[in-house]
Amino acid sequence: MLTKEKTINWFQGLQDEICTQLEAADGKGQFREDAWRRPEGGGGRTRILEGRHIAKGGVNFSAVHGPMPEKISRALGISTGDFLATGVSIVLHPANPMVPVIHMNVRYFEVQPAGNPEGEPIWWFGGGIDLTPHYIDTEDARFFHQQLKKVCDAHHPDYYAHFKQWADDYFYLKHRRETRGVGGIFFDRLNEEGGFSKAARFAFVQEVGRAFSPLYIHFLEKHREASYGERELAWQGLRRGRYVEFNLVWDKGTKFGLDTEGRTESILMSLPPVANWAYDYHPEEGTPEARTLSLLRKGIDWVNYTES
Amino acid sequence: MLTKEKTINWFQGLQDEICTQLEAADGKGQFREDAWRRPEGGGGRTRILEGRHIAKGGVNFSAVHGPMPEKISRALGISTGDFLATGVSIVLHPANPMVPVIHMNVRYFEVQPAGNPEGEPIWWFGGGIDLTPHYIDTEDARFFHQQLKKVCDAHHPDYYAHFKQWADDYFYLKHRRETRGVGGIFFDRLNEEGGFSKAARFAFVQEVGRAFSPLYIHFLEKHREASYGERELAWQGLRRGRYVEFNLVWDKGTKFGLDTEGRTESILMSLPPVANWAYDYHPEEGTPEARTLSLLRKGIDWVNYTES
Repeated sequence: MLTKEKTINWFQGLQDEICTQLEAADGKGQFREDAWRRPEGGGGRTRILEGRHIAKGGVNFSAVHGPMPEKISRALGISTGDFLATGVSIVLHPANPMVPVIHMNVRYFEVQPAGNPEGEPIWWFGGGIDLTPHYIDTEDARFFHQQLKKVCDAHHPDYYAHFKQWADDYFYLKHRRETRGVGGIFFDRLNEEGGFSKAARFAFVQEVGRAFSPLYIHFLEKHREASYGERELAWQGLRRGRYVEFNLVWDKGTKFGLDTEGRTESILMSLPPVANWAYDYHPEEGTPEARTLSLLRKGIDWVNYTES
Repeated sequence: MLTKEKTINWFQGLQDEICTQLEAADGKGQFREDAWRRPEGGGGRTRILEGRHIAKGGVNFSAVHGPMPEKISRALGISTGDFLATGVSIVLHPANPMVPVIHMNVRYFEVQPAGNPEGEPIWWFGGGIDLTPHYIDTEDARFFHQQLKKVCDAHHPDYYAHFKQWADDYFYLKHRRETRGVGGIFFDRLNEEGGFSKAARFAFVQEVGRAFSPLYIHFLEKHREASYGERELAWQGLRRGRYVEFNLVWDKGTKFGLDTEGRTESILMSLPPVANWAYDYHPEEGTPEARTLSLLRKGIDWVNYTES
């Protein structure tokens, strides 16, 4: 049986595994860890790396529990009670502008409704993984989506199409009419609806978590020695500005965390080391920067993408 | 009688006046103007300067009107109808870290309720001015508040205390437990309540608008030649990061604008040219940076502040 402890331990182990893999891939940076306790119950381990290839990377694990704050039950639209929220959250900002930014999150949530202490808890899994290239390499985007589709297809034939569209809609800067990057998959409130067992949902989430390192290390190794200059760094700065805009204006997880007294430094580890803003900047037509902008849209079938 | 046209023209004139004054004070930068139209009615003039002392400054004027979008009437909690929103909005990010960032906004809003086309429109003025030093100079903070108090006192004995507290509460980064800077004044929905005439409210708002240039130019001239090095620039970058956090996470005007299809580039002119984030950075005790942090709190009586 899948106990709370097993779930928590698995997430914690995933953090360890990914940190080891990323340190090896970076070749220089070491994660520094901040272990923190939440006064009301639980805590986490925030790990930050400032390395050679990964300019700033955060790999967070947390497992918080206790009586659910009213603000949270209201925000989630569920009845209050004792809750558990656990998961792993990652954002990596590479040094080389030709390497993409990546984000991954896998999480489990449950609450034992106060009015029904003996009944089944309300539970769900959520998560996602998405890629934000400063310069879109369409071969990378196709490979990324093909790998995510394989992960999804092993668990349900509808997962990929559904979760890919969800990511397009979620990782979207409405005020820019741009997607954050080439998307990926996003899912939330995966529970028993549709006849799934908790074990089946968890198995899927575990596979998403395990897919992270090989995927990102593939892109890191492919591009980390690519040459670049002032121009590419300037563009990276502006794209990092967009990343900040998404995370602070639209990302529900960030807003929720900041609004419910989450640990600010763990939440905002997702922000880049530096970001730039230039008033009304438009790259010249025909440049790689303009091409990237033209591909920041919803609904691109990356799995079958071919250059037209 | 105060017509819509007179109000709009006054705000437009204020933009011209302030731009002339700031160009003279900068000595090098010239404002570039983008005039824009809103398809549903009205438009604006966004002006941006990248100068010698003002690294990035925006002075926006707008006057938009037409049928009020439902999203806006819902957000404002008022009945729909034809509306007018006009005002001037300014943010200046100085080059020298010893010069403070400043923000000012003055605005007028009215709506003619659709159900009552012949009646009095609903109207109000709003605005504010606040100072965000990278390094707090307590003499500057006292002078700033004393000048704002003079402006307020000329119009109502309660204005300063009320609007100073409003600014403390508004310009607050809840997730950091820090004020944005040393505050200033903030006010909204100033209408006929309390026995005020529209002319009296407008006269106050005009005086706030006219106070801006002399105040900021005082700080600019006082500190623009101050010496600084890598350390002060690094701290400026982190404080600019906080400015970004405030504007994107908490500022109601920014959220409202981005959510109601306002002109993104005009709204986000408030962001600095560059901002930095460092994980869990704490300045050493006893440094000017730590002293600044210790003064980023609500409720400081800056008018009567003395070094303890």
